[in-house]
Amino acid sequence: MDNFELFGNIEQGKDFLESTKNGKFLFSFVISYTETCEIPGITFAGTDKNSIQFTPPADAEYLHYGYCKTIDKIPMTPDGKPTPGLLTKTALESASIPHLTINAGSKISPQLPFINTGMTFGRNISIQDAMTDSQVSNAVDYGRIVGRSMASLTDCLVIGESIPGGTTTALAVLKALDFDAKVSSSIPNNPVELKNQIVNSALERIDSDHPYSIVAKVGDPMIPFVSGMLSSASSVSNVMLAGGTQMAAVLAFASKIGFNEENTTIGTTSYITDDDSANFTSLVKEIADIPVISVNPGLENSQHSGLKAFSEGFAKEGVGAGGSIISSMIKTRNDSTKFLELAEKEYRRLFTSL
Amino acid sequence: MDNFELFGNIEQGKDFLESTKNGKFLFSFVISYTETCEIPGITFAGTDKNSIQFTPPADAEYLHYGYCKTIDKIPMTPDGKPTPGLLTKTALESASIPHLTINAGSKISPQLPFINTGMTFGRNISIQDAMTDSQVSNAVDYGRIVGRSMASLTDCLVIGESIPGGTTTALAVLKALDFDAKVSSSIPNNPVELKNQIVNSALERIDSDHPYSIVAKVGDPMIPFVSGMLSSASSVSNVMLAGGTQMAAVLAFASKIGFNEENTTIGTTSYITDDDSANFTSLVKEIADIPVISVNPGLENSQHSGLKAFSEGFAKEGVGAGGSIISSMIKTRNDSTKFLELAEKEYRRLFTSL
Repeated sequence: MDNFELFGNIEQGKDFLESTKNGKFLFSFVISYTETCEIPGITFAGTDKNSIQFTPPADAEYLHYGYCKTIDKIPMTPDGKPTPGLLTKTALESASIPHLTINAGSKISPQLPFINTGMTFGRNISIQDAMTDSQVSNAVDYGRIVGRSMASLTDCLVIGESIPGGTTTALAVLKALDFDAKVSSSIPNNPVELKNQIVNSALERIDSDHPYSIVAKVGDPMIPFVSGMLSSASSVSNVMLAGGTQMAAVLAFASKIGFNEENTTIGTTSYITDDDSANFTSLVKEIADIPVISVNPGLENSQHSGLKAFSEGFAKEGVGAGGSIISSMIKTRNDSTKFLELAEKEYRRLFTSL
Repeated sequence: MDNFELFGNIEQGKDFLESTKNGKFLFSFVISYTETCEIPGITFAGTDKNSIQFTPPADAEYLHYGYCKTIDKIPMTPDGKPTPGLLTKTALESASIPHLTINAGSKISPQLPFINTGMTFGRNISIQDAMTDSQVSNAVDYGRIVGRSMASLTDCLVIGESIPGGTTTALAVLKALDFDAKVSSSIPNNPVELKNQIVNSALERIDSDHPYSIVAKVGDPMIPFVSGMLSSASSVSNVMLAGGTQMAAVLAFASKIGFNEENTTIGTTSYITDDDSANFTSLVKEIADIPVISVNPGLENSQHSGLKAFSEGFAKEGVGAGGSIISSMIKTRNDSTKFLELAEKEYRRLFTSL
């Protein structure tokens, strides 16, 4: 498929594209929360500090209804750039890919039917442990249950996430597990210094090399939950982790609890794989022998500055956008020109109705 | 298939059996609650009045884990007859049919990942309205959302329920909608007089023939929710309502909000269709032109009194047992002798480990 660039285990990537082309996809959207996102300057996922907590449920509502219930408008930055959920919604809708929302520690519940796990949000890793060991173990167990159920309903389970501030906890987990990670961010001019400070102070609390203890101290609830999902789902069906750095952290933790590499792939945008400030594809290669499939959504050709911004380094990934676009293109045979046309239509629908 | 007896639209029933024989099934288990069950003598779903509220989540946990978390033992009557969930679990497990639990107004949440709707339980219809009109409308909307998602993941969506006291609210809804219902019950020597008294006092509150108003006054949350599921799911895939009287009430309400009869069937046990005190098959015929598929699970041949009891009029149906057994037999080609063998094995596992 000319739409995609492959990295890592390229043969397996080709097999994946071949074997899923007439199959069914199911998109699972995992929403969560870490108080780490409340540190000023860490994220732009929300127009102000207080609104960040509404971003994950609002993204879920937008994917579902086409508008939000928890907040008035769709999630956007202070200067009006829309959530990457716009790309996800366009992708899923154009390919009629069903989706389910899973609440794995979001501070606010979305106003739609969702899968409840009873999990609580993660604490700010710059000042305290994110979770207890038993919360991590519970998250893995619940993830395993959900992953098994969902994988049995489809040929390819796509897993996306929304957890503001999650690139920082991902960086901490990757470093604590001894991977040489440089982390991308939803903000151009990535606040690298601030993130490294937070990560370093978090790493000081680590006193055990047990992976559960590491994630409890410096991670977030999404990482063990999605790792549990991957662990069970990859024994039943294909799994595509849809995301960048955060999914690399999932992969790193999952490699400690076990998963089936042969059925696993990461799907993301070219904005992630082309990002010189990060080292995404070599990082994945270091963690696991799986393919990275990258798609260029073609947004640099958009007439709308809000869409063009994605291609200029803002919100390079999120809400499983890359993996959704890949799944959608596999299923519909659309190319990026067609995808851009659909995304622009959705953009106009949203910004005309505001 | 010799295992089944067909009633109602027999041709459509044969088509259903033919078209699903190589297809995928998904069992959705809707748990709910009506305070009507707290009236003494109405139900035996629980060993005592206080424990009734734990029965729906405990049934869900048992289906999922093989044991319960909310209570110590599996749900059973005061004299130790097990939940019909034992039949459901045996059926789903032997055919590897995936299932998902949906909380549509249970008083207690199950300790497993489940689909959350935010719905609240219904009030005791003998003394007050069960719900408000807007709660009914919300239940229908959420049911539609869940039904559409689930139906897109399978070839046949099977819907079972657990709502103690639900045959009484079902009777009230059927009568209020002008159907000539005589209601079966989970208790031999069905407390017909008591139920009729409750229903009659509830019916006195009705002041509108609008179906939403009727369900709000004398129904329960399960009825509008499952009706919403049926409404959307039947436009996408096959749907089997798994149950007796309560599913007749769903059908009656759903016929007011619209659903696709051609894709709809009711699956139940012969203990329901053979029950002389009720009139199940003729009632369904009066409501909709769909097939009723009935299965005899063969429990009269059991060496265990706890299983034999089902064939003697105790808990003739529940937890979607009949529909699950039918789905399971379609998929595995097992007959009732084989099913009995598996159910006895599960019975021994449970009662040896107690």
